[in-house]
Amino acid sequence: MSTAKAFAALNDHDPLVPFSFERRELRAGDVNIEILYCGVCHSDLHQARNEWGGSMYPMVPGHEIVGRVTAVGSAVTKFKAGDLAGVGVMIDSCRACNNCKREMEQYCEEGMTGTYNTLERDKVTMAQGGYSSAIVTEERFVFHISEKLDLAGVAPLLCAGITTYSPLRFAGVKKGTKVGVIGLGGLGHMGVKFAVSFGAEVTLISTSPSKQKDGERLGAHKFLLSTDKEQMKQFDSYFDVLLNTVSAPHNYDQYLSLLDFEGRMMIVGLPAKNPSVAPFALLKNRRSITGSMIGGTAETQEMLDYCAEHNIVADVEIIPIQKINEAYERMVKNDVRYRFVIDTKTL
Amino acid sequence: MSTAKAFAALNDHDPLVPFSFERRELRAGDVNIEILYCGVCHSDLHQARNEWGGSMYPMVPGHEIVGRVTAVGSAVTKFKAGDLAGVGVMIDSCRACNNCKREMEQYCEEGMTGTYNTLERDKVTMAQGGYSSAIVTEERFVFHISEKLDLAGVAPLLCAGITTYSPLRFAGVKKGTKVGVIGLGGLGHMGVKFAVSFGAEVTLISTSPSKQKDGERLGAHKFLLSTDKEQMKQFDSYFDVLLNTVSAPHNYDQYLSLLDFEGRMMIVGLPAKNPSVAPFALLKNRRSITGSMIGGTAETQEMLDYCAEHNIVADVEIIPIQKINEAYERMVKNDVRYRFVIDTKTL
Repeated sequence: MSTAKAFAALNDHDPLVPFSFERRELRAGDVNIEILYCGVCHSDLHQARNEWGGSMYPMVPGHEIVGRVTAVGSAVTKFKAGDLAGVGVMIDSCRACNNCKREMEQYCEEGMTGTYNTLERDKVTMAQGGYSSAIVTEERFVFHISEKLDLAGVAPLLCAGITTYSPLRFAGVKKGTKVGVIGLGGLGHMGVKFAVSFGAEVTLISTSPSKQKDGERLGAHKFLLSTDKEQMKQFDSYFDVLLNTVSAPHNYDQYLSLLDFEGRMMIVGLPAKNPSVAPFALLKNRRSITGSMIGGTAETQEMLDYCAEHNIVADVEIIPIQKINEAYERMVKNDVRYRFVIDTKTL
Repeated sequence: MSTAKAFAALNDHDPLVPFSFERRELRAGDVNIEILYCGVCHSDLHQARNEWGGSMYPMVPGHEIVGRVTAVGSAVTKFKAGDLAGVGVMIDSCRACNNCKREMEQYCEEGMTGTYNTLERDKVTMAQGGYSSAIVTEERFVFHISEKLDLAGVAPLLCAGITTYSPLRFAGVKKGTKVGVIGLGGLGHMGVKFAVSFGAEVTLISTSPSKQKDGERLGAHKFLLSTDKEQMKQFDSYFDVLLNTVSAPHNYDQYLSLLDFEGRMMIVGLPAKNPSVAPFALLKNRRSITGSMIGGTAETQEMLDYCAEHNIVADVEIIPIQKINEAYERMVKNDVRYRFVIDTKTL
């Protein structure tokens, strides 16, 4: 056992506070990682504040983890001490069901084991996340990270990156595909980067005119102000693929009409109130709405390798862990471009 | 010009009454069909009563038309006098857009021309449907009908048939696919027949226990009572494809959890109130909701040929045209198994 320093939520309403806990002894299949950076995902805040219900305390959030391997168990084959490594949104799954066999462990039929705010599969140990100095976990859920990229910018790839890479790949986005990215936050900014990198014609779709410049800076070719009815009409039946990253309350109706023949709206946001769908708009052009949740282990490694090859990282603002509560407040106001990343050396 | 006998709605509230109107002179590309049977679709009632808005009167409803060719224009190549022929939900389209070129004229970028309750593309002539003695229309939108099948049972294939055949094909239903058909009405009963014929394992999903026997008679292998929470749990993540034929108000949420990995719910019903979608349920298993509207001309002919080969027709109750208003009342109460078909000789 080793003591990890961390910040934790002790309940659903107080700020996060310094905390320490024991990481387990290294098992044969385990990788011990000294955490260097951890991204701050909006879902950290949702869970710390129990906004989705069922939160478990004390909770050390964080599932966008990058660091350096300090030790490996005797059965580990993919990693050695000194390697860079990443851990994302899950640390385990049943490994036996059809979806695990497909390396789509995020859809494990027994339910994947999240990186924090859950019990590990022993049903006793509380899983604790990346706002901490170290993590010990099994190599199947640990990823190789290239030495070439800025490490702080890599951290958000483990959640925001794979969450947008996977649906764009699934929807077949390639050179010339007309892609609309709805919303420009942590997810949206990665969606724009990936879609541009895949060769698509990319339109940023936002309710905020101020995002136009940012979209252009990230490589978007066009901007569509979704509150402007005239502009929305001009893009009627225009897109092959929409990537809907919005978690604020909204309905799907207004965006469906933007889809061309057999167009798909890929959903990665999680609005608290269930969005509605206009059946007439859905039937026209044989349109689809498809959900997508992070990505499996194989695809996550593929995405990280792709980012290394194409020099893609998230745009981040690095903070010391002591500023995590302030960062949460700023996140609530969308005052971040586009991801806070904790420098865990400050623990 | 020739005078057609018909029944028409003269406004949105009175019963349909006897009516006569002129069918146009045969043009070079036209087929003149003596109508023998016309199915009664629920959308006839919606439009006669202006429940979707924008109805035009006098309105001769009917878009499930079968009959015999009495004359053809000089440029017609596919038909000759004496042939059986069918006309479905559309009689024209722009023929130049991408979707028309794909023979997916139902998604015509300019909008398809419906068989009734609309102006023809000359923007002057009112299109009138199949509750009439004859129809004159262009051969692209006329289909060959086999002499082998019961003609009254063929009529509903032109709308209810293609509306369910097309999404099941699109979703790749084949031997062993686990298909759930939601709702057992005019559409649902054709959905069960087609899915069974394609070799799928078919479950009828209904809110009404009384439908279980009918489902079995139509070939369904299982029955799921959707109001029974325990049964719904047993079918969690079970289906590859759901065919949702329900037009009554309902939300999509409850059915999404029934879908397995990459499962699709195909929507063909048109509830008046927009259904809601639970994003968490959509993200799990990378599920999709896809709309589907009738089918294009090529696929409609394919479906009719498939039905002739596999001896598939709708289950119908033949009525004289004089009983159309009574039939509408019974349709509102779901008192029909599963399609009224007008014997137009009674005109």
